Amino acid sequence: MDGLQVRLSEGAALPVPGIRLAVAAAGIRYKGRDDVCLIELARGASTAAVFTRNRFCAAPVVVAREHLAKDPVRYLLINSGNANAGTGDEGLRAARETCRAVGAMVACPMSQVLPFSTGVIGEDLPIVAFQRAMPDLAASLQEDAWPLAARAIMTTDTRPKQCSCTVELAAGQVTITGIAKGSGMIRPDMATMLSFIATDAQVPQPLLQKILERAVQPSFNSITVDGDTSTNDACVLMASGASGIVVAGAEDIRCLQAGVDAVCMSLAREIVRDGEGATKLVEVLVQGAVDIDGARAVAYTIAHSPLVKTALFASDPNWGRILAAVGRSGVDMDLKRVRIYLDDVCIVSDGGRDRAYREEDGQRVMQQDRIEIRVDLGMGAAETRVLTCDLSYDYVKINAEYRS
Amino acid sequence: MDGLQVRLSEGAALPVPGIRLAVAAAGIRYKGRDDVCLIELARGASTAAVFTRNRFCAAPVVVAREHLAKDPVRYLLINSGNANAGTGDEGLRAARETCRAVGAMVACPMSQVLPFSTGVIGEDLPIVAFQRAMPDLAASLQEDAWPLAARAIMTTDTRPKQCSCTVELAAGQVTITGIAKGSGMIRPDMATMLSFIATDAQVPQPLLQKILERAVQPSFNSITVDGDTSTNDACVLMASGASGIVVAGAEDIRCLQAGVDAVCMSLAREIVRDGEGATKLVEVLVQGAVDIDGARAVAYTIAHSPLVKTALFASDPNWGRILAAVGRSGVDMDLKRVRIYLDDVCIVSDGGRDRAYREEDGQRVMQQDRIEIRVDLGMGAAETRVLTCDLSYDYVKINAEYRS
Repeated sequence: MDGLQVRLSEGAALPVPGIRLAVAAAGIRYKGRDDVCLIELARGASTAAVFTRNRFCAAPVVVAREHLAKDPVRYLLINSGNANAGTGDEGLRAARETCRAVGAMVACPMSQVLPFSTGVIGEDLPIVAFQRAMPDLAASLQEDAWPLAARAIMTTDTRPKQCSCTVELAAGQVTITGIAKGSGMIRPDMATMLSFIATDAQVPQPLLQKILERAVQPSFNSITVDGDTSTNDACVLMASGASGIVVAGAEDIRCLQAGVDAVCMSLAREIVRDGEGATKLVEVLVQGAVDIDGARAVAYTIAHSPLVKTALFASDPNWGRILAAVGRSGVDMDLKRVRIYLDDVCIVSDGGRDRAYREEDGQRVMQQDRIEIRVDLGMGAAETRVLTCDLSYDYVKINAEYRS
Repeated sequence: MDGLQVRLSEGAALPVPGIRLAVAAAGIRYKGRDDVCLIELARGASTAAVFTRNRFCAAPVVVAREHLAKDPVRYLLINSGNANAGTGDEGLRAARETCRAVGAMVACPMSQVLPFSTGVIGEDLPIVAFQRAMPDLAASLQEDAWPLAARAIMTTDTRPKQCSCTVELAAGQVTITGIAKGSGMIRPDMATMLSFIATDAQVPQPLLQKILERAVQPSFNSITVDGDTSTNDACVLMASGASGIVVAGAEDIRCLQAGVDAVCMSLAREIVRDGEGATKLVEVLVQGAVDIDGARAVAYTIAHSPLVKTALFASDPNWGRILAAVGRSGVDMDLKRVRIYLDDVCIVSDGGRDRAYREEDGQRVMQQDRIEIRVDLGMGAAETRVLTCDLSYDYVKINAEYRS
């Protein structure tokens, strides 16, 4: 991490002092597994959050925004199996009821509780199931329940996603731990599916919000599985302050930012790796663009092309499909300057197949389970990176059968 | 056809006086089937054309544009199996060579020949195969070969697409016949995959171009299978003038336009019906938009959503996915005013599931093999209609295996 005192442990989930978690099986949709999670923040903690830009945002997103604006956050209540989206006024009422149930159990105002839901859109949230699970949740809060929480928030995910990192600040070491869920309907815009990240550092809210907004841009905001932005995306960054270590000075901020960045990138990569039906992790790097919007347009056109994605699934170096996607991205370009690479293999130059290209070289790269598609537009200095995956039979199977 | 003297015969391919066609098996890629087609226009015919907006447009598109600007068109040469796209300067040379071969055989300048190619991107066009097939092609030109031509231009299409129409003009009856190919990489922008339409009416070129540009907008420019705009899209409208009937006056123009519109709509619908792996024809109608761009953004976001398309394949009335797509379209809307219908069944109103909606009603519509998704944004008067299909296992199969 370029000299910074940041130690990343992918797959780990270290406890974060000042943050306690609990899970329970409320039977909201799934049988025999945990599906609700309660996260408690120490008094005096600060909280930052970013949410979906989908206009049809879910009821819990509306309520979470309201509560955030009003009061410091003490609890997050998360459920899987039901998104409480497309549920109109009834959905808003249900989201508020679940916050009220938490408040009643732990004796805090309901406006200090943020609700989060993920799962099927358009079904009523069974409030009673939450109420029944509440005593269990409140009684079992503990600092080392991150791995249980990572499982409880899963929907079509095949595995939990968690990551930890320690950062050396001027006054001592702090921990950052994050979990995330997401596998389909992944094209986060402003935030990811659901991700909850916490640190025991003491960070003023405006700074925390800035750190979060910076961290989500190259990570959760640069991944796509199927181009479908969810109604429920949310990413929360909590700072409990329990370490007593205050983030002070530019160097501390830079270190904490690097730690949060690393956790977000790791979780974002795990979401794409676990993309519905995904067999490959594909990094689309667009360089040499005139501006960042152009770079992103080209990157997402490639990353969303069903023809490119099925060719990746088939390990077929059908580079013509990549070239066609670049060409239809709507970005002005000089075809003679465009160069396209599969990892280190140049496939397109001078308006057509590169003269030195050999099919076996392309084939070799396409066989890998991790592939970089690099496009150099040769126009300017802007660049961007988007993570995606291939499109397989299993994507269709999962999405044709989900809900049934 | 609202009182107009237009008689549409879907699936028919009536001869058009002044237009002759021939096909041959040149062995460009496929074995044992016709893969090249030559179309001859009577001297004095006029020709209109629209082409792909993909920046990486194929060599034949570049050459066809050059020749169109230079000389009246006498011949179209079309091949399937090889797109001659992404082939750089070598591809341009090859496209010109094939025109030269036609010119040499029939004794006309090569600039009176337009080349068209469709098939795999990025492989060199085997010029020799064309040269070998040329005597056969030139010797077998005939007016009733439209059905053979419709087959010769197919790639992953499972069936030929052809349509005829007769129109009563002031001075007598004229015929319009069209063929088209296309099944994947379908999201035409300015034109379709390949479509060739001819009439024996006598039409000045500027008028013919205007008629064509109007006709492609609601037809070929409003369909999508997978959102991938091809490098080779082209649509040509030829007027041989062989009937001796001159299109004169507003009423004649209106009739001819209606006839060309009807042929284009029929062919466009056939392309979507034959979309790779398609099991359903889906019409997305967006009404009540503030402007046409907004209407199209909403319609295409729905039509391109892999989650909506897999739900359609599964006959699952998972309307939450439609709602999520509407919400992420980037169009400003008042959620309370948005209404979404599956055929006549209202599924969303007032920001959530319609109160009267019953799952069995949605289920009934989703079982059909022809479905209308209607979104009323309740904001303005603009509307648009986009045709698409579902996303099935076979889409992945076809595109993972094509080329291998």
